[in-house]
Parts: sequence; C-alpha cells; structure tokens
Amino acid sequence: MYAITLVIQCPDKKGIIADVTSFVYQYSGNIQYIDQYVDREKGAFFMRLEAELNEKNCPYETFIEAFEKGPASEFTMTWSHQPIAYKPKMAIFVSKYDHCLYDLLGRYKSGELAVEIPFILSNHPDLAPIAKAFEIPFYYVPVTKETKANATQEQLKLLNQHEVDFIVLARYMQIIPEELIEVYKSNIINIHHSFLPAFPGAKPYHSAFERGVKIIGATSHYVTEELDAGPIIEQGVAHVSHNHSVSQLIAKGSDLEKIVLANAVKQHAAKKVMVYGNKTVIFT
Amino acid sequence: MYAITLVIQCPDKKGIIADVTSFVYQYSGNIQYIDQYVDREKGAFFMRLEAELNEKNCPYETFIEAFEKGPASEFTMTWSHQPIAYKPKMAIFVSKYDHCLYDLLGRYKSGELAVEIPFILSNHPDLAPIAKAFEIPFYYVPVTKETKANATQEQLKLLNQHEVDFIVLARYMQIIPEELIEVYKSNIINIHHSFLPAFPGAKPYHSAFERGVKIIGATSHYVTEELDAGPIIEQGVAHVSHNHSVSQLIAKGSDLEKIVLANAVKQHAAKKVMVYGNKTVIFT
Amino acid sequence: MYAITLVIQCPDKKGIIADVTSFVYQYSGNIQYIDQYVDREKGAFFMRLEAELNEKNCPYETFIEAFEKGPASEFTMTWSHQPIAYKPKMAIFVSKYDHCLYDLLGRYKSGELAVEIPFILSNHPDLAPIAKAFEIPFYYVPVTKETKANATQEQLKLLNQHEVDFIVLARYMQIIPEELIEVYKSNIINIHHSFLPAFPGAKPYHSAFERGVKIIGATSHYVTEELDAGPIIEQGVAHVSHNHSVSQLIAKGSDLEKIVLANAVKQHAAKKVMVYGNKTVIFT
Amino acid sequence: MYAITLVIQCPDKKGIIADVTSFVYQYSGNIQYIDQYVDREKGAFFMRLEAELNEKNCPYETFIEAFEKGPASEFTMTWSHQPIAYKPKMAIFVSKYDHCLYDLLGRYKSGELAVEIPFILSNHPDLAPIAKAFEIPFYYVPVTKETKANATQEQLKLLNQHEVDFIVLARYMQIIPEELIEVYKSNIINIHHSFLPAFPGAKPYHSAFERGVKIIGATSHYVTEELDAGPIIEQGVAHVSHNHSVSQLIAKGSDLEKIVLANAVKQHAAKKVMVYGNKTVIFT
Repeated sequence: MYAITLVIQCPDKKGIIADVTSFVYQYSGNIQYIDQYVDREKGAFFMRLEAELNEKNCPYETFIEAFEKGPASEFTMTWSHQPIAYKPKMAIFVSKYDHCLYDLLGRYKSGELAVEIPFILSNHPDLAPIAKAFEIPFYYVPVTKETKANATQEQLKLLNQHEVDFIVLARYMQIIPEELIEVYKSNIINIHHSFLPAFPGAKPYHSAFERGVKIIGATSHYVTEELDAGPIIEQGVAHVSHNHSVSQLIAKGSDLEKIVLANAVKQHAAKKVMVYGNKTVIFT
Repeated sequence: MYAITLVIQCPDKKGIIADVTSFVYQYSGNIQYIDQYVDREKGAFFMRLEAELNEKNCPYETFIEAFEKGPASEFTMTWSHQPIAYKPKMAIFVSKYDHCLYDLLGRYKSGELAVEIPFILSNHPDLAPIAKAFEIPFYYVPVTKETKANATQEQLKLLNQHEVDFIVLARYMQIIPEELIEVYKSNIINIHHSFLPAFPGAKPYHSAFERGVKIIGATSHYVTEELDAGPIIEQGVAHVSHNHSVSQLIAKGSDLEKIVLANAVKQHAAKKVMVYGNKTVIFT
Repeated sequence: MYAITLVIQCPDKKGIIADVTSFVYQYSGNIQYIDQYVDREKGAFFMRLEAELNEKNCPYETFIEAFEKGPASEFTMTWSHQPIAYKPKMAIFVSKYDHCLYDLLGRYKSGELAVEIPFILSNHPDLAPIAKAFEIPFYYVPVTKETKANATQEQLKLLNQHEVDFIVLARYMQIIPEELIEVYKSNIINIHHSFLPAFPGAKPYHSAFERGVKIIGATSHYVTEELDAGPIIEQGVAHVSHNHSVSQLIAKGSDLEKIVLANAVKQHAAKKVMVYGNKTVIFT
Repeated sequence: MYAITLVIQCPDKKGIIADVTSFVYQYSGNIQYIDQYVDREKGAFFMRLEAELNEKNCPYETFIEAFEKGPASEFTMTWSHQPIAYKPKMAIFVSKYDHCLYDLLGRYKSGELAVEIPFILSNHPDLAPIAKAFEIPFYYVPVTKETKANATQEQLKLLNQHEVDFIVLARYMQIIPEELIEVYKSNIINIHHSFLPAFPGAKPYHSAFERGVKIIGATSHYVTEELDAGPIIEQGVAHVSHNHSVSQLIAKGSDLEKIVLANAVKQHAAKKVMVYGNKTVIFT
C-alpha cells in the first residue's frame, strides 16, 4: 500500500470530478481526501486528492503514466504528484535575525515539520553556531555588489547538489536574483514582517507605529520578481495599542512571523498550496 | 435551470464519490461545490454537494427519485436535499433579553439571512414592540408549571401552522420539552453564553469571573434532552482581563452571543451542518 | 455624590500624577480609575481619571474652576471633563447601506450604548423606515454638486439645534466638507471597510480579492481633511480564503464594520479616546 | 540612575495613589509607568509602578527602607520590588515533550526573555541533548514512588544552590510536591493543554475531540495544591473543525502551549502578575 497526493489545475468543465474519481476507483484506489475549488469568473478548476493504492495491482509509476494518458490529457491538466511519505528537501536562507531560524529548527527537531533540511545558507557568518547546535550544515555565501553573480551561482550549485525542493527565506535580507526565482518558481517562501499590502518594503514596524495602527501583521508569500508582491500564502495579525513602542511592535511581530512562516512551510510541504495568477488556492 | 443541495451520510466504502459525481454528470448536472469528510475510526462518510441541473432534461422530482433509487439505495445513504433558492422558515423563541433578537432581525432586514421568519414567540410579553417595529407576528405563550403542557401544544400548533423548518432560541430562558425536541430533532438551535463545556448551566459569566479566566466564550449548539450538551455548531471567544466586572463580561459576552448565533443560523439554513453522534460536521 | 471623568494632555514633567491625585484627595474625592501614558520621544503626557466627589463639599463647577486654576494651569494642560452620568448626543449619518445602522440602533435600544441619538441624517430617503421603526427623527438632506453648500448649512443647523456632541458616519457615502470637520474636529467617527492603510478609497473588498489576501479588516477613524487618513480608533480583522467571492468578503466585512464601529462609538462616548498628532491614545 | 519596579497590594483607601506618587516625587524619582486596579467588592487596591531614581541622591536600599517606613506601613501594604535591570533566575522542568522547551530556549537565545536559566531539570534523560545544544546544565532527577521524597529534596537543593526565583513546568508530567509549592508559592508556572476549566486532567485533546468542540485552548497558571485549579495567568485559543483528528488537535494545541507559556513567563519575569485569592491581576 502507498499513498499519493495529486494536485490538479485545468479549465473548468463538466465531469472532471466524476472522471478523476472513477479513474482512481478503477485502479482500486481508495480516496481519502478530496477537495476542489472552481474560480467561476476565470473558468478555472482546482483539485487536491489523496488516495491509497496497492503497489502490487498498480505500482506508483504505472498509476502516474495512466493518469497522464487518461484524465490529465483529456482535461488538459497542469498537475503534479508526490508520495505522501515523501519529505521535501527545504533549504533555509538567513541573515542575522535568528528568531525564525530557532523556531523552524525547534519545530523540525520536534518532528512537527515533514521536511528534510539539507542546509542553512547565510550571507553572514553570525548564525553558524545555531546550525551547529542543531547539527545542520551551514554555508556562508557573502553577497556584495561585486560577488552577487558568483554568489548566485554558488547558491544554485548548492541547491542542485542537495536536490533542494524549496527554499525558505527566514528573514533573509537580500533580494533574490531572477535566475534563482525562475528555477524555484512558486518554491521560494518569504516572510514579510507586515500585513501586506500595507507597509511593504523595509521598516514596516516603524511605519505601523507612525500611522498609529491598532493591529499589526505578518505575511508569508511566494517570491516573485516584483518585491513583496507575490502570491500570499498565509497572514497573521495581533492587536497592539498606543502603548507599544517600536521595539515592542517588533517583539510582538516576531511572534507572528514565526507562526505565519511555520504554517506556510507546513502547507507548502504538504502540497496544499496551488498558485494561479498572483493568488493562491489553499486546501485544508 | 435550478440548483440543488444534497447532503449525504453513509458507511464509508470505495467509490462513493465516483458514483455520485458520475450520477450527476449522467443527468447533465454541473457540480458547483463538493465537499466530503470521512471519519475513519467510525467508518462514516459525509458529503455535501451543490449542482446545477436543467428543469427540462431533468425536473427536480425526477432527479430526487432517481437519486433515491440509484446511489442512495446502493450505499444505504441517509440523505436530504433542498433547492438552493429555498428560504427555510425560522421561528424565533425569546424571553426578555433583546440583544440577540435585535441582531437577528437587523441581519434579516439587511438581507443577510436567507430565511423567512414567520413569527416570534415568547413566554413574556416584553419584546412584542420589537416584533411590531420589524413587522413580524408575535405570539405570547406564557409557561408556568401548570400551563407547561398546554404551552407545548400551542407551540407545536403554531410551528405546524406556519410550516416552520427550524427554531432559534435567542436567549429563551425555558427548558424545551422533549415532545418539541423529538419533532425538531437537530433543528433547534440554542445560544449558550459560555464556552462549553466550561460553565454549563445558569450564570456562566459569574462563574467565569469567579474562576478568573482570561477568555470568555459563547457556544451555539443543537438542543438535545441533556441540558447544554447537544452537538456544538459554532463557538466564539473574546479576551478579558481582571479589569472586567461581571457586568462588563456580560456586555462583551453579548457581542459574542450575537455573532456566534447568527453564524450558526446561516450555516444551518444553508444545510452546511450535519449531525452525527453528538458532534457536527460543518462544510464551509 | 457625583462622578466625573477628567482627560488630560500636557508636556511630560515630574510630579504631574502626584499633583493631580493630591488635588483630588484634597477635595475629598475618591479616585476610582486612573490611567496614564507617556510618549517619551515627544515628551507628551496623557492621563484619564475617574473620581467620585461630594456635591455638598465640592460642587461640580467649583471643582472644575479649582482644577483649571490649579494643576491645569501649573502644567499647561489641554484638558476636558464630563460627568460620568452624561450621555453624549450622537447624530448618525447614513446613505443606503443599512447594516451598521441596524446594528447601532439595536445596541442603542438594548441599552448598550451610553448615548442619546437626536436624529439620523441621510442623503437618500431609503432608510427612513428604519428610523421610524426605532422612533428616531430622520432628516433627508440630499447632496449634489449644486446643493452641497446648502446641504452643509442645513447639516450644521440641525447639529446645532440638537446640540450634537459627535457624529457617526455609518457608511455615509459622501465626503465631509471642511467646514463640518472644523466644527467637529476629532468628533466625527467614520468606518472604513478595509484594514487601513491597505486598500484606502472605494471598493476595498474588490482590491482585497484581487490581491488574494488571507485576512480582511475594518477600520474606525476620526475624519480629517485627508481622506481615510485620520487617527485610527479601532481595527478588526477576519480570516478569509480563496473560497470567498467578493460578495462573501463583503458579507464577512459587514460584520467587522458593525463591531469595529460600535466599539469605537463606545470608547469615544466614554471619553476614552485622546487624539494627538495623527494618532490616538485609547485608555481601557 | 537606576530604575525600579514596585508592586503593591493593600486595602483600598482614599489617597493611596496621591501618597505613593508624592513619595516618589519627594525622592526626585520620575514615574515612568503607573497602573492600578481596585476590586471594589473586596475593597482591595493593586498598583504597579516603574520609576527612575538617582543613585547619588537616593540609593536603592535607602529608597526601599523609606518606602517601607512610609507608604507601605501607612497603608499596610503587601509589596515587593525589583530593579528593572535584574534578570530573574528561571529553572525549567521538563519530561519528554520537547516543543515548549525548544520554544523557550529559542526565545531565550534570541534575547526575547529577560531571564537567566541556571538549569533544566527532568525526570527523564531524553531531553539532555537539547540542553547540551543550548549549553545549559541539565539535571536528571528521576521520580518514582520510592524516590519521590528524595527527588523533592534534590530539587530543592538545586533550586537553592542556583538561587532560582521561579520555576517553569514546560510540560513536566509530575505532580509537584506540597513542599516545593510552599517554597515557591505563586512562583511555579504550569502550562495546561486545554482551555481551563474545560477539560482539566490528562488527555484534554482527546476529551475535546469527543465533545466536538470548535475551539481548543491552552492555559498557563500558577501551581497550587489543587490540580489544574491555580490562578490563571494567560489563555490562548485556536479554531478547529470536525476535520481535525486528535493528533491534529495536539499539533495545533502545541503551538498554543508555546505562545501562552512564553507570554506567561514574560509577564511573570517583569513582575506584571499579582496573585490575590485564586485570581491574577495582570498589568500591561
């Protein structure tokens, strides 16, 4: 027995669900979870499905090939699949802030995150001791105007060598080069320390303080070429008052950042996030 | 064209989704929404489905009959259906507290609740003027030890006459007689002014104050014979501090009660709530 | 015995609290509540105080005069006072949306709002029946390009006649003229249907939908000459998903608007909001 | 210059605030924060005050002595004080669950918690490697029926040796002996994995699942002799649905536990929590 996750996107049409579920049934599969969403305005259909199948009757590769020739081509699907048992490889990029790193590593060690972490990469050497304490390889790849091109190549090499599936920017204070974004499209997760689209850019807590807002937020989104404008995965908020100084806003915000980022990572790792246009569909 | 909601409960088995969706497809129906849930431990399958069908090809009654003979009997389903356009008839029972009544009626008049309100019933005459202001019939049915049996008969007569689908207890301070509960099983919605199962019974805000809790709540549930122990539909919470007096807890709680009750009503009216055992499955 | 609320703003200096509390003590007053806030960066001191005094020993006017000559002049305070028993007069301005109006009037009738409502004013006749049902005078003051100046005069006349203390814009879809803003500085409360500063201006729910946000909000703020940029009083948020259509965002948002506006009204009426610069200090 | 926190509890009486603030003023102190609360029913007055004083004019000990002889004896205060710069010593007790431990240590290393952690103590050896990774001494003190009395003595010895100010039970699965509770009265912080008073005792997530609640919670409270019944410091909640299995409830709950416990620790360390009766007053 093995379990598989299918994630499907295609033009909306009558009969897709009937066709896909009948297909699984025909291969003696048992659907354990199905969720779908239709964007009626754009005529787009989205589905996420978990099924249990029998290796003897229908090996993984056989099922995938048959699905590709069957429903996938019939409905011109964009689709992907992943064994439920598979733990995607997640690289963490950091700079000097350590709160999100500690949080991710603590959750990882507690068994809360179904991922592997092949390495941590930073443009500063400061957080190397944390990597060491958690026994994870640490690569120091400085980024300056002059070294930027080389740094990108080194990053790509490391990501490639370790067969990294997706990247988490745990408060990594560098703009990601286009080349990396292209290779890891919808696979680079950033945490922005504000409730986007309010206060994009640097120093959002200072801006929030100046504006006198009563709620602050954090936003996890996929990195696209336009800064802080990629598809939003998850947002969190906390109430604040006049009483909070900028540094207290930052402290409260750090808590949000950790939770919002961790949730985004969990959903992404479980293939629960689908990107279309500049938005996400998130299955629960 | 007409739209229909199907709500299904049956023993879990391979192929249910495939069978049901193929059935709808065969009748040229277009599934607009499908959600399902499986309780693996108990082997129970739940599904909610909205579909658009064509009156000419397949009138409502034809579809219902065919479904009954087809998937419903094949999988021994407990199921129900409702035209999406149908507005269920909701009776409101009140006593003297008016905040939930004002809230429900305001939402009703704003077009927020997809229901009809044939009447308001009370064991006190106090709230009659509100019913009048909102132009809804008001019945005063006093309940005393002596009149209890008669009152129940009068209530049943009114509910029957007006073909009431479900009852909302908007802070109705009387125990509902078994006879009524039987007729309206899983169709009487109560709002309890605490976060059940903490503080059941009367005066929960006083108990919450005594215990020094930092959060208060409200719970909407179906009425069963065991007091405050029926299946929970919706819960809401609010943070409080040592600073809140009992009367301030009550004021904060009133806000919760209104929102939690209104949400429960909306979900029930849209047939999004399924009861099984002493729990609910709520489709979104 | 009478109770009084004092609200004070002045340059920060040692000894203010000692001086004010000693002053109250000297007049045999009993302080029931005191809260203060210091903006260290700007050297600004803020205090809110509730005290019980004895009419015989120290009539209201005597106390006010003595305070003016005493602490108020010593520390060059900007201050104001209000008997706790006083219910400020609140005018409601509306257009065609009725959900905030129903909510405010329901709360008013339930005794939840410590205000009087001398009248409801609208630039459309549509909501007159609601005013009638709640037995509150309704004035229809249409606003067109040509009539705008006259309309402002008529509004001012009505506000003046009824000795209105503050104005609530319960989704009033007109820009407030400068003349009115000047007279009612920090006394006009607006509800904006987004989480400011994100999505200012019209159609924020459409913008939120386009951006694919996972949280929507509502903001209550004082009206200033710059549109949607005045001091924020209260904000609320709700989680949403890809699943929410624009109309569902609007429905969820309406709930937020009601609660956020009602809370802002309660705080303002109790003199718990102090404006300084473009921000508010809110005492609890 | 030094800064001091005063925390005061006494019978309510006119003039306390005036007296205390005048006292500070007289010693050329500058009050930076003051908050008070009166429980009118019980006639109890509570105050928390932060002030800056000058070591030359008024050394710490001089101020303390003068305050004891002055306001403290005049109003028969129960009071305590702490230099704001002081970092209280916090011992962490754990068993086998590691999520709260990782969270506390991550926050500690990030500089978020203003405490020192002299040691971690456990009745199991399992979490020793985490202590090692974070370079904090780890003591393994097994507790069995036979060794219980000895274990208590060993715990007391360690606490005494390291001059521990307060103890955090980060999911420590042992009942705390009375002897320890007496010594550390209102200084042992527990995290209970439910929304007390609902679901006290073991396996609250299983109980919550059985009852079909729509919200789960976590509660941080001081340990008293009655199990799970001590004064509540902080509570947190999260929404759940029928869709959550017991293990998903546990995962969601773990997040709550971490945040609620960390917040309780921060408030306790800053002397913002006052216990009276079985409740807490929490200054912000």
